[in-house]
Amino acid sequence: MVTKQLNGIAPDEDLRRADSLAREIFSDVANKWALLIIEALSDRTMRFSELRDEVEGISHKMLTQNLRMLERNGLAERKVYPTVPPRVEYTLTEPGRALQATVDLICGWTHQHFGHIEAARRRFEP
Amino acid sequence: MVTKQLNGIAPDEDLRRADSLAREIFSDVANKWALLIIEALSDRTMRFSELRDEVEGISHKMLTQNLRMLERNGLAERKVYPTVPPRVEYTLTEPGRALQATVDLICGWTHQHFGHIEAARRRFEP
Repeated sequence: MVTKQLNGIAPDEDLRRADSLAREIFSDVANKWALLIIEALSDRTMRFSELRDEVEGISHKMLTQNLRMLERNGLAERKVYPTVPPRVEYTLTEPGRALQATVDLICGWTHQHFGHIEAARRRFEP
Repeated sequence: MVTKQLNGIAPDEDLRRADSLAREIFSDVANKWALLIIEALSDRTMRFSELRDEVEGISHKMLTQNLRMLERNGLAERKVYPTVPPRVEYTLTEPGRALQATVDLICGWTHQHFGHIEAARRRFEP
């Protein structure tokens, strides 16, 4: 899966490290809430409360956790304005924005296979 | 970006609504275990135990749940052979196979942004 080498470490260890990092990042971003937040932020910078309205159904906890994950991985930037109360805004970085292609892909795939999926569901639960 | 319209609603708007079919399907498939199973099955038909070995770290429960979800949505076919004990095999359908592009995309994205993500993590946890 991983072929790229990182510098300075023995190749084997290199690959193991890259592999485990790849898997870690994959686990972080391959979840519906992370991807739905990325989709919402692709339009514009948003405040926490705006995101909560935009991503219907997300809980306060899930939104907090995923925004922290996005910030930690450098996929979203958090900016605090010293107003009273402080205004906190989130903006996608370029790598965050690039991930949106994934949402588009799944979204397109979903719509393309509506018929197939609905028919399969009827057969599964008659 | 997705431009195709469904009943006058843009697919990505559809996705943001908590009660849409698009969101329901998206929620089913946009999770790491579902995507890793799809990735593993893209090579060949597999038995449950083979999948468990192939998808490192997956629990019995997560594998069972996700295989059931894939079967329910018509993304994988479950075939039982009347041997003793019965042999159960899983094969991706065409729509299931099409979803694999998502895994490839996230994988490619991950490797492309290793450096950025590692640097961001160092800044986040100094």
